[in-house]
Amino acid sequence: MKPNGIITLLTDFGEINGFVGTMKGVILSINPEAKIVDISHEIPAQDVEAGAFILNNCYRYFPMGTIHVAVVDPGVGSHRKVIAVFSEDYFFIVPDNQVLKYIFHTHETLTVVEVLNKQYFLNDVSRTFHGRDIFAPIAAHLSNGLNIEQFGPIINDYNRGEIDWPAVNNSSLIGKIVYVDKFGNLISNIAENLISKPIASIKIGSIIINQLSNSYTEVDIGHPLAIIGSSGYLEIAVRNGNAQKQLSIYRGDIVQIEF
Amino acid sequence: MKPNGIITLLTDFGEINGFVGTMKGVILSINPEAKIVDISHEIPAQDVEAGAFILNNCYRYFPMGTIHVAVVDPGVGSHRKVIAVFSEDYFFIVPDNQVLKYIFHTHETLTVVEVLNKQYFLNDVSRTFHGRDIFAPIAAHLSNGLNIEQFGPIINDYNRGEIDWPAVNNSSLIGKIVYVDKFGNLISNIAENLISKPIASIKIGSIIINQLSNSYTEVDIGHPLAIIGSSGYLEIAVRNGNAQKQLSIYRGDIVQIEF
Amino acid sequence: MKPNGIITLLTDFGEINGFVGTMKGVILSINPEAKIVDISHEIPAQDVEAGAFILNNCYRYFPMGTIHVAVVDPGVGSHRKVIAVFSEDYFFIVPDNQVLKYIFHTHETLTVVEVLNKQYFLNDVSRTFHGRDIFAPIAAHLSNGLNIEQFGPIINDYNRGEIDWPAVNNSSLIGKIVYVDKFGNLISNIAENLISKPIASIKIGSIIINQLSNSYTEVDIGHPLAIIGSSGYLEIAVRNGNAQKQLSIYRGDIVQIEF
Repeated sequence: MKPNGIITLLTDFGEINGFVGTMKGVILSINPEAKIVDISHEIPAQDVEAGAFILNNCYRYFPMGTIHVAVVDPGVGSHRKVIAVFSEDYFFIVPDNQVLKYIFHTHETLTVVEVLNKQYFLNDVSRTFHGRDIFAPIAAHLSNGLNIEQFGPIINDYNRGEIDWPAVNNSSLIGKIVYVDKFGNLISNIAENLISKPIASIKIGSIIINQLSNSYTEVDIGHPLAIIGSSGYLEIAVRNGNAQKQLSIYRGDIVQIEF
Repeated sequence: MKPNGIITLLTDFGEINGFVGTMKGVILSINPEAKIVDISHEIPAQDVEAGAFILNNCYRYFPMGTIHVAVVDPGVGSHRKVIAVFSEDYFFIVPDNQVLKYIFHTHETLTVVEVLNKQYFLNDVSRTFHGRDIFAPIAAHLSNGLNIEQFGPIINDYNRGEIDWPAVNNSSLIGKIVYVDKFGNLISNIAENLISKPIASIKIGSIIINQLSNSYTEVDIGHPLAIIGSSGYLEIAVRNGNAQKQLSIYRGDIVQIEF
Repeated sequence: MKPNGIITLLTDFGEINGFVGTMKGVILSINPEAKIVDISHEIPAQDVEAGAFILNNCYRYFPMGTIHVAVVDPGVGSHRKVIAVFSEDYFFIVPDNQVLKYIFHTHETLTVVEVLNKQYFLNDVSRTFHGRDIFAPIAAHLSNGLNIEQFGPIINDYNRGEIDWPAVNNSSLIGKIVYVDKFGNLISNIAENLISKPIASIKIGSIIINQLSNSYTEVDIGHPLAIIGSSGYLEIAVRNGNAQKQLSIYRGDIVQIEF
């Protein structure tokens, strides 16, 4: 698998400071032909968990050979590693802080390299902006055709992370809200294929929903519903409304299905 | 008119969830040469009216042959149609919910196709994210040179929508605020060419403005003014301030001109 | 130095109104091969000072020959000039309102042209949206290879602006906060190279910090620290927190270093 020239960027930098624009300038200085695509720069500040979730929903929709760069990096300037990962279909350049945990748990064959070769960094590496000084130039050099092993040694002791799988038994299934989207929709860790039997009830907070809907429009405006969302997970929403605000549910809260 | 390779995106997805990045991944997987341009992803959630207004202000500044994709789609997953529209100069891929109403009312010759040919959708169409599963791949296939009629049958019963034209008589003109921009500027539906006579007064809410300004700087800082805005419509603003907050005016409120 | 085809955009337009998308449409209509890169569109409304600071942090990371367009333009529609600037490495198209003050004070040789040649504007120039009607087409024509002097006469009476340098003496250094970033980090005008001696104390508002940190992780979560930030200036931050909110410090507030 060769890089295809596409580099995606996911950060918590926001837009205002021009940090993302600066990273693009660095990339284009090294590879003027790179195609740079933004995934999101509005990941909540230092929220590695949210970054991991969003990246996992997006990466596989890009052409094979895409380089994904994720910089949600509370440990910048400390001794956390920078890693370059090759998953047979995609490349990832990330801090070694579990932002790839979903990718690590769903791929059997991965090459993980610790990025150490300073010849591919910017000359002056700041203490606080490795997106510009390390991640962007590494991605650009990789897109120019360098082999991933030219950036440093292969390692095995990277931060694999753990995933909160739902607890399943014969009559019930207990999951968690793992992400709340912009619309206030509550996304759980319960994958569609775990829901193999007719549902008796779905309990979240103080409310109970009695069925899975096929569309937001199946309930009245302002009413809650349960639906399989775009990422293939059970999601609690309010039609034309904000489920988080209306139900006062937060990430980590329990969703319980009875069959 | 052939597609020129440019695909614009207008949605209410925001940036945080990576939905827009995902759509771009889908497009580039089908047409790696596509040039994707964002118009806005901050349309207020499910506000088709705002999406229609913004799209109408922007589309004509793109080169002929541009494909405009607008996904402000409260009916996603219901039986609303997806339509592909050809206006001689531009292509549009949208839900059939009046987001094109300004285009429908300003073009005499239009081809409207109901998008039904699933061979051009992603394999698994989710219930909630047709931007990824239908709109993006259709736009990409269209940009690859497919004829619009390959996506489905020509229809006439699309949602044409209605436009609130101002009420005009000899001595006055009654319009409405149809959009409030980021700066709090209040944009009306009163086009410049309707204002053919000297203005005696412009009344909005509890204030009266006695003239049209040529520039924001013609009034003192903090004072309201009336001006023909960038889209060619009468606009009420406050110099270096926020007219919406200062005047407590909302979309739908009346603007009355006396000549 | 020839333009390299890259055009960057920095504005206070936000995303919602589609203004930036419209500018891109205009550029691509004139130069379909232009590579357009966003630096930021979230500059606070009409905050020329913030725009100048961000632009100065970013511009030099782009390949030589890049055209930088900055539209933070409270004087739009008045008699302020539009200028095109050539600095040997980069081109700039901006309103003549000091948004380039840092560039003016750090380059000895500059060519500054007043943009007057209407043949390169859009046909109808609005009173309020020169980003679309003047800045975008000028940038696109420049990227197509026109010489900067084809846009108007060379001038010397442009708005050079002034820069607040820190007051330095033997035992202390008094600077100011010139920018507050998205994370609430407080960025001063004190460049790293001014801090040549061991620091006794850094005073800001009601707190005193006794050393420069090398990384955010050197202090406990929630504690303030002083660090040389990514732009090479002294910065006051709170680890995993928001220094502005926690310390109630604003732009213009004093930072005092005792040696």
